[in-house]
Amino acid sequence: MHPIVALDAMGGDHGPSVTVPAALRVMSRHPDLGLILVGDRDVVTRALRDAGGVESERLTVQHASQQVAMDERPSIALRNKRDSSMRVAINLVKEGVAGACVSAGNTGALMATARFVLKTLPGIDRPAICATLPGVRGHSHVLDLGANVDSSSEELFQFAVMGAVLASAIEDKESPSVALLNVGEEEIKGNDRVKQTAALLAASNLNYVGYVEGNDLYGGSVDVIVCDGFVGNVALKASEGVAHMITHFVREEFSRHLYARMASVVAMPVLKALRRRTDPRRYNGASLLGLRGIVVKSHGGADETSFAHAIEEALLEVEKSVPDRISCRLESILTTRQAV
Amino acid sequence: MHPIVALDAMGGDHGPSVTVPAALRVMSRHPDLGLILVGDRDVVTRALRDAGGVESERLTVQHASQQVAMDERPSIALRNKRDSSMRVAINLVKEGVAGACVSAGNTGALMATARFVLKTLPGIDRPAICATLPGVRGHSHVLDLGANVDSSSEELFQFAVMGAVLASAIEDKESPSVALLNVGEEEIKGNDRVKQTAALLAASNLNYVGYVEGNDLYGGSVDVIVCDGFVGNVALKASEGVAHMITHFVREEFSRHLYARMASVVAMPVLKALRRRTDPRRYNGASLLGLRGIVVKSHGGADETSFAHAIEEALLEVEKSVPDRISCRLESILTTRQAV
Repeated sequence: MHPIVALDAMGGDHGPSVTVPAALRVMSRHPDLGLILVGDRDVVTRALRDAGGVESERLTVQHASQQVAMDERPSIALRNKRDSSMRVAINLVKEGVAGACVSAGNTGALMATARFVLKTLPGIDRPAICATLPGVRGHSHVLDLGANVDSSSEELFQFAVMGAVLASAIEDKESPSVALLNVGEEEIKGNDRVKQTAALLAASNLNYVGYVEGNDLYGGSVDVIVCDGFVGNVALKASEGVAHMITHFVREEFSRHLYARMASVVAMPVLKALRRRTDPRRYNGASLLGLRGIVVKSHGGADETSFAHAIEEALLEVEKSVPDRISCRLESILTTRQAV
Repeated sequence: MHPIVALDAMGGDHGPSVTVPAALRVMSRHPDLGLILVGDRDVVTRALRDAGGVESERLTVQHASQQVAMDERPSIALRNKRDSSMRVAINLVKEGVAGACVSAGNTGALMATARFVLKTLPGIDRPAICATLPGVRGHSHVLDLGANVDSSSEELFQFAVMGAVLASAIEDKESPSVALLNVGEEEIKGNDRVKQTAALLAASNLNYVGYVEGNDLYGGSVDVIVCDGFVGNVALKASEGVAHMITHFVREEFSRHLYARMASVVAMPVLKALRRRTDPRRYNGASLLGLRGIVVKSHGGADETSFAHAIEEALLEVEKSVPDRISCRLESILTTRQAV
């Protein structure tokens, strides 16, 4: 069976002008893959034509009459937008027509809708958002990045299981290392929830390696890093803030005076290589883990390269049957725990 | 009266080889300032001689027989190290001999000792760590960066008052803007504590401007940003992690092959200007706010430039009478609140 991914073609800041060309690009790279473009038929068909593509057995358009706005309240979207491109794409996963869906739309609405339509896996209380962060020595899968605030230690433990399964599937690692994000001050090492989660992890058969600190998010030396969604979201956005500030300063310094502008010409190939290497588009595509189905969230401002990467992330999770694996692993852990 | 600052000369990764030359440098820049070097008399005197300095009326050495290790538990330091350089420096503030003290030692021990010796200001439940973060359009004072975890909304409100007073004093602003750090996901905008704190701030006479997200930590458009110490600590360290990763990649790319190495020579003046501009040493010196006295924490790995900056931060707080101002402001706010 060929993998099929449903795309919320209307989602994100740029809608079909980004999602459709990205779809064509991914299709050309994966000859087995089928894609369903969900959205306003006229708009999507026009975007498809503009991008030089045509409908085919592998690339179909599924009409959806509504669209969730980027700033719409999730509860409103859930109630009033039953025929949104986002909802229809998720429905396709629910019905088994597609193996996964991808949306660059409103994160809150995507999470609420996916949870309502697909439901969580047995043993999972709340889904979490997991993304891959680049590091000096590799990369890490970090969750939760903002789906939840004030997660209990039991929920944090479930995040650890989900992250470990994802890392194991994606990286082909038998037993990926799992760490808990904590503060570095001595006396106050962590709050109660972190300490309780550490105890749960130490007693499990996960490869738990202990606490890491904020800077380790970009060390790449641990496969999975677990934190509460409030902390994860702030840390991720703070990182974006620093990267943006440094880029801003680089640009300013290299255009300050004539010598600097000349130097920037000489340094251009190196600066370009650097940009490729730190390109956040290569890491686009966060997984909504813990659902009975695969849902990948793309950055709202994603461009073609970036959205294509999110589609490929979804494809990979389909090929690796991530939700089934999470289910199995969780069941085995819960059984072991009861036996003890 | 001339301002006097006590220095924990033994603290930090490098001890007197950094603290003493930094002291001499600051002395030469501030002809009014008096400094007390606290530590092992022999060691400090030797370091002073090596750095080409001499004891004088303005620069004295105060003997302390013990030293707090960087990894020592705060409770142990508090109990067993009553004659540590850190403790003696704080005692000098307590006794009114010095207007402030600076230490690059163990943060947990410094906080615990300062709190025990100096006590908190009336109306302050817990002190907080406040640092200045650079931004694209200016800089922001951010607290708490790790003194507390799980702060209540009342405590977060107190942090806001302390931060506003510090910013007002340092920046000479009548009514500095104050924001609360929050997550950006729509449905889940914040946890209960953040929402309750927002209500307290909105009802106060502080210039409260609402929520900001992690990336705004480096925007520089708000004067004061308030968060729980767990979140602040992780965000700060995540930022350090990203900056370190980018620096690492820059270095690697500029030494990858012959052309890149040549380009790095041409680009050197620009890269140097860039480094000066993003130099974290210019921001060294975090304030332990909420105490009956001024305590400034330097980064443990601080070099001379960096430690000198922390001393100047302490001097500025002495000149601006920061603790007295916090006390007054808090009293006025509490009175207003009771009146309502």
